Amino acid sequence: MSLKYAVIGSGALGGFYGGKLAQAGKEVHFLFHRDYEFVRQHGLQVDSVSGDFHLLNVNAYRSTAAMPVVDVVLVCLKTTNNALLETMLPPLMHPDTVVVLIQNGLGVEADLATVFPQQPIAGGLAFICSNKVGDGHIAHLDYGRLNLGLYQVDVESVIHQISADFVQSGVPAEVSPNLMKARWQKLVWNIPYNGMTVVLNTTTDRLMKNESTRRLMHELMQEVIAGANACGAGVKESFADKMLELTDSMTPYAPSMKLDFDFCRPMEIEYIYSRPIQAALKAGFDMRKVAMLEAQLRFIQSAFTLK
Amino acid sequence: MSLKYAVIGSGALGGFYGGKLAQAGKEVHFLFHRDYEFVRQHGLQVDSVSGDFHLLNVNAYRSTAAMPVVDVVLVCLKTTNNALLETMLPPLMHPDTVVVLIQNGLGVEADLATVFPQQPIAGGLAFICSNKVGDGHIAHLDYGRLNLGLYQVDVESVIHQISADFVQSGVPAEVSPNLMKARWQKLVWNIPYNGMTVVLNTTTDRLMKNESTRRLMHELMQEVIAGANACGAGVKESFADKMLELTDSMTPYAPSMKLDFDFCRPMEIEYIYSRPIQAALKAGFDMRKVAMLEAQLRFIQSAFTLK
Repeated sequence: MSLKYAVIGSGALGGFYGGKLAQAGKEVHFLFHRDYEFVRQHGLQVDSVSGDFHLLNVNAYRSTAAMPVVDVVLVCLKTTNNALLETMLPPLMHPDTVVVLIQNGLGVEADLATVFPQQPIAGGLAFICSNKVGDGHIAHLDYGRLNLGLYQVDVESVIHQISADFVQSGVPAEVSPNLMKARWQKLVWNIPYNGMTVVLNTTTDRLMKNESTRRLMHELMQEVIAGANACGAGVKESFADKMLELTDSMTPYAPSMKLDFDFCRPMEIEYIYSRPIQAALKAGFDMRKVAMLEAQLRFIQSAFTLK
Repeated sequence: MSLKYAVIGSGALGGFYGGKLAQAGKEVHFLFHRDYEFVRQHGLQVDSVSGDFHLLNVNAYRSTAAMPVVDVVLVCLKTTNNALLETMLPPLMHPDTVVVLIQNGLGVEADLATVFPQQPIAGGLAFICSNKVGDGHIAHLDYGRLNLGLYQVDVESVIHQISADFVQSGVPAEVSPNLMKARWQKLVWNIPYNGMTVVLNTTTDRLMKNESTRRLMHELMQEVIAGANACGAGVKESFADKMLELTDSMTPYAPSMKLDFDFCRPMEIEYIYSRPIQAALKAGFDMRKVAMLEAQLRFIQSAFTLK
């Protein structure tokens, strides 16, 4: 039996991953916001390093109330919009619908589980460099791997089927046996680089070139790993060195939080900083430098919200 | 016997303190840099909350080589210029000349002592709000207390005479029995507010209004106190609360490092951050958040030097 998909938040992430599934012939229904009219008329364009494609007849909607019930909901919203999920998701769900939160940070599944305690919930970590470059127009610049993991309700076979659907559609995907570990591992990169590029108004390469901040990025990574391990995630200390090497090999890069800051959008401070800090603290480890970065970001957020 | 004074660095600090001594009839010789010609022609104007005054005949020089030997040298330079002292001081000194470093931070006396191991050296902490507002023109806005302390060579009677000269000239001055403690206490305020106003490009009052940064300022103070006490300074933990209250009562304020940053002058990172961090670390305490602030400042310094 083939799975029916819905994509909530059809931007840089949702437009690409949903687009790949649709292009491979899967049934995908997309929720659009500002781009709805444009996509209805012109379709969806994806410029991708692994091959450009255009979807002409897109199942596009402007409200989930108008969408059909599906088997899988791919949530690709910014976490700053997660309060909307309580009202957005029900029209899409049957009792076995798997909600996959393709989002950064820690605690997104736990929060959704308090609202839908019986629903299958999974997480997804996207290792991708993609941007929305215009109306109904996504640019996929590099990478693309999708790491999936179950959070609640044992729907092992379905999550593997989702992963297989992605692989069939040309997206490198895999199912992680330990979603919490996968989320913490991604935070080892996200926590230092997202916040520091905002606070110092810079790019990843400049942070790496300066001796003081290069050392600081390493220390922040080590602190996140210590926090992860206090929570039982089992992340190796050498993982920090790998992430430094990875960043050295990357082209100069503005992480998603820096783009949010530059475009005056709310930053994902809650799930990328506050929740990991709280989780580590509860487990007995104080991520002191990460907490300082959080405070600086909250100051910046409130300063530019006041404008 | 009355003391002869030299002032090295006749700006917001040196112009005020030296000006007060000169106005009270003490013999004071001033080293000027850019303002030399102006002061020779027009004198020195001090607009002060405790009474404006003008000095018409100022002993002004543009090089210490032209200055007489004195009994006391008041060093009011930014610490970023301290490498110049090795060549600037000798023309002013007899074997008992007391060099008073009226500067912020930790380690300035120790560095000078390696160059002049036999010379009497003292420190001075200025609790003052003053600015240079034009050529030969100082504005003294608030406070003014001067805290003096001996570093090397026991010249107890001279340091008390210097203090008495200031008191006679209308400057509240006192001799501290513990210069290291006095320096650390000033750092409890200077470390959090100087760096954070630069990194977040803001003022003291805004840091106090935001809940996250207010808590962070308190944590940074507590960390400095822990560092101070690891070094044996004996600073009470309640001193942090006093400093928070003081800051709440202050008018919105840009600390000296913020002014340096705004006017693209080098920041006093070495003596206000690096030395205290190293001293605490050597004594077994890692000021982790202060070290993060130092790294951020070094990044900013290198970024605006590269412009």
